[in-house]
Amino acid sequence: MRTLKVIKIGGNIIDDATSLENFLVEFSKIEGPKILVHGGGKLATKLAEKRQVKVQVIEGRRITNAETLDIITMVYAGKINKNIIAELQKNNCNAIGFTGADGNTIVAEKRPIKEIDYGFAGDVVSVNIEVLETLLNNHITPVFCAITHDGNGQLLNTNADTIASELAIGFAKKYATELYYCFEKNGVLLDVNDTNSVVENINQETYQELLNNNVIADGMLPKLNNCFHAINQKVHKVCIGKSAMLYNQNSKFTTIQAS
Amino acid sequence: MRTLKVIKIGGNIIDDATSLENFLVEFSKIEGPKILVHGGGKLATKLAEKRQVKVQVIEGRRITNAETLDIITMVYAGKINKNIIAELQKNNCNAIGFTGADGNTIVAEKRPIKEIDYGFAGDVVSVNIEVLETLLNNHITPVFCAITHDGNGQLLNTNADTIASELAIGFAKKYATELYYCFEKNGVLLDVNDTNSVVENINQETYQELLNNNVIADGMLPKLNNCFHAINQKVHKVCIGKSAMLYNQNSKFTTIQAS
Repeated sequence: MRTLKVIKIGGNIIDDATSLENFLVEFSKIEGPKILVHGGGKLATKLAEKRQVKVQVIEGRRITNAETLDIITMVYAGKINKNIIAELQKNNCNAIGFTGADGNTIVAEKRPIKEIDYGFAGDVVSVNIEVLETLLNNHITPVFCAITHDGNGQLLNTNADTIASELAIGFAKKYATELYYCFEKNGVLLDVNDTNSVVENINQETYQELLNNNVIADGMLPKLNNCFHAINQKVHKVCIGKSAMLYNQNSKFTTIQAS
Repeated sequence: MRTLKVIKIGGNIIDDATSLENFLVEFSKIEGPKILVHGGGKLATKLAEKRQVKVQVIEGRRITNAETLDIITMVYAGKINKNIIAELQKNNCNAIGFTGADGNTIVAEKRPIKEIDYGFAGDVVSVNIEVLETLLNNHITPVFCAITHDGNGQLLNTNADTIASELAIGFAKKYATELYYCFEKNGVLLDVNDTNSVVENINQETYQELLNNNVIADGMLPKLNNCFHAINQKVHKVCIGKSAMLYNQNSKFTTIQAS
């Protein structure tokens, strides 16, 4: 089985031009098939403020009204995605930008209204890998922003971590998929105040122990649940840490595997 | 030789949600390989006004400063392009959105500064059709907005008519390419005030006659020069008229051919 790397970067890289440029140089050097997924960073919020669109956040989740979706589509799929593509081309990495609507790659459904109406937020229903596979076979790197569609003409806002894991899961039947979550920390830490206290390997059993011992910081719980969801769906391994884990052999990070 | 249709739509369709929706229904039904190219319409200007970016126009050409390029990238490649893609998927037309940076499909160079500094405006240098051909062979329709790149990390603003003609020219070696410019008129008119006075066929000789007789309206001259440039570069035929020319057999329009 061939290996496919799905790499997600977030605000700490996106929001800093130099970090992003440096990351894309290293990303371009990674051999073999790969997919990049990027979040939106602070740009969308800034633009919303400029346009005086009220950004509503309930329980840590942004409510996507029509105007917010417009801004997200412009910033994520336009400005951020296309500048990343141009920069990758400069580094001789042939890339094409994607939303889930492009190539009908990621179909989602508008989150049902229960207590909260999340607006144009989409939960992933299906991932269609055929087009992406064709491109990967032609040495082209798909670059996804955090937008999907419902197949009925409606774009939807979907969490970038979810897009990355669903893509990794979608490819798991045909590739040994490796999912990399790049963020600002060295991975799962035993002591939040000690950046070197990295738990290097976690599997289903040791995860339970860590949970029982209350070692996992609250903020890490949704991230880790997302990782194990991917592992349970046959993703080969999930790595979380600073982006240096991708290219610096001395970098510490956390690897999550089934066993 | 297979036929490839390259179809360009402008502001009169883009700026009206219903017109765009209706056009995309008809566009989706067109059989065989096809590429859609869209302009930006008035949205970019509106957003620039909202953000109080001064839009400078010299000799009918917009000067693209860094902030204008940002807005164009957000509106053309983000909002307009991705909503078109979602709408095409709804109509069972599998499509992928492109700038010239995506797949390194259209490389341009920043227009040299002579009397006027056009800013981030790009003149097309090369068109790379390999990726696009692969997608067309897989029944996927590329949808281009009016943005290119210089191969060195810089996005550039390029006229949508030019993008359409350069794509048609780029494919002319391998396909019998047909270039369709959809605009608000029925084509080249003998009498500007009579919408039915359509010149149905123009070739190199009759074009010269029309020019000698001062029949061509000033606004049509750059459009027609662009058409003949394509014809001289082996594009099979160029049609200009209302978008109905694509699907309504009774529609009148102008066809330009070598002879």
